[in-house]
Amino acid sequence: MTKKNKASQAIGIFDSGVGGLTVTHALVKLLPQENIIYFGDTAHYPYGGKSVAAIQSYSIKIAHMLLQQECKLILIACNTASSVAYDLLKEYIGSKAIVINVIDPLISWIKNECAHKKIGLIGTKQTVSSNIYKRKIDELGKGIQLSSYPTGLLASAIEEFGRHEIVGNLLDVYLAHPSLQNIEALILACTHYPVVKDKIAAFYDHKIEVIDSSAIVAQAVQEELKIANLLNPDGGHRRQFYISDYDYTESFVSGTKLFFDEDINLEHYPLWD
Amino acid sequence: MTKKNKASQAIGIFDSGVGGLTVTHALVKLLPQENIIYFGDTAHYPYGGKSVAAIQSYSIKIAHMLLQQECKLILIACNTASSVAYDLLKEYIGSKAIVINVIDPLISWIKNECAHKKIGLIGTKQTVSSNIYKRKIDELGKGIQLSSYPTGLLASAIEEFGRHEIVGNLLDVYLAHPSLQNIEALILACTHYPVVKDKIAAFYDHKIEVIDSSAIVAQAVQEELKIANLLNPDGGHRRQFYISDYDYTESFVSGTKLFFDEDINLEHYPLWD
Repeated sequence: MTKKNKASQAIGIFDSGVGGLTVTHALVKLLPQENIIYFGDTAHYPYGGKSVAAIQSYSIKIAHMLLQQECKLILIACNTASSVAYDLLKEYIGSKAIVINVIDPLISWIKNECAHKKIGLIGTKQTVSSNIYKRKIDELGKGIQLSSYPTGLLASAIEEFGRHEIVGNLLDVYLAHPSLQNIEALILACTHYPVVKDKIAAFYDHKIEVIDSSAIVAQAVQEELKIANLLNPDGGHRRQFYISDYDYTESFVSGTKLFFDEDINLEHYPLWD
Repeated sequence: MTKKNKASQAIGIFDSGVGGLTVTHALVKLLPQENIIYFGDTAHYPYGGKSVAAIQSYSIKIAHMLLQQECKLILIACNTASSVAYDLLKEYIGSKAIVINVIDPLISWIKNECAHKKIGLIGTKQTVSSNIYKRKIDELGKGIQLSSYPTGLLASAIEEFGRHEIVGNLLDVYLAHPSLQNIEALILACTHYPVVKDKIAAFYDHKIEVIDSSAIVAQAVQEELKIANLLNPDGGHRRQFYISDYDYTESFVSGTKLFFDEDINLEHYPLWD
């Protein structure tokens, strides 16, 4: 395949469900000429409470499918999968595609913006217990103190209730935890959370920085494609959105709008049938 | 196999997770001499938002495993699977084992206790949208009016928070829905919900009957085994608890105690690996 042909290939993005659409939305705003294949593994949603081995095996199977579709870059748009399956996917994919997770771009950003600060983090149980953010932030040697707390139910609550008051109540319970006090910034380590970024900022009286990685990750994708000379020069506009199990309820479809800001057509891709 | 040998075989019970332990607990209290094999499909938990086809395929695979272990009776301890997979499992299992779901015993009970009443129901999205309770209750011809409402997040909230105040807040949001007012009884159509039965009763000022099917289902199992002359006469006490994906977090283990009232040893059974 020539370089030009390869540049027109799609960016493959996957997540455990529809949360990764927040990053996808940031990406299509920044790079509207790119073709996109999105895969939401709704058959196994949520990943946050699953074991490391399970998440790794799901990720490998999805990556294999995205490679078969000749994606030039694979973006792991899920913090849980980024936490426990990135190294494995890098190894598995090798030189066949660029692999980007949602954690490393954020760490680079924090390195420049948060030196000597005390920052908090919220994410799924698995993201927090993997300890990956803490390890990477400690490696920066920038005197950053990180305090993490698992907010297991938050992603599902946002998926069902959007910005309803009950999500605010749940946030109040989680954010009141001692480990999330006296912080100067808070990392949203789950792609669902940007939907309630305003509520989170309000909890802290808008006095701390709420760090949403969507735009930062989109920029990292742009940069990597530029370095590899793989930015799509043409106005291609193929966008496919697959999910592994189709739930036909209205709340699910309206949910996608909450994450992507526009209506999208979800197709069932029976990867596990 | 002789009848006596068959009587000593286990009762197989399955659910999408640990919620089915509430029914299992009622069962071991009523029939302490029975051997039990429990399978919680934590790899696919929660079933409530999955498609009919997905839930059916999971149920078939689990039933096949329980048959291989020579279970004399298979109890579908999950309302969602009972709603959409019971007929299929009956057909698949044939005369190899007795099959019992958590819905029909409750319908029989309602027939005698709730004639001409207006009753409500809460359950997962899939249980409610299957419309199975409504259809079966209408078939009774007892003038019972049923009004159902999906409470999708409640099972996961109970699993994470137990009886914490936030679960009460969530219940307040759900139970305030117009379709659940002016009722004389409320069916808890999910095996997780008995854990917060008191909170639900309190919401209605203890003026309505909150119908928890655990004991009713346990009695149905006893009755079916009696009819088939398959009650275990000996004091066998083999109890195995399997889950398809093991989450090692503490909250999960403490969660099982909430549902079963005593510590149990969960083993990983990699049915999907």
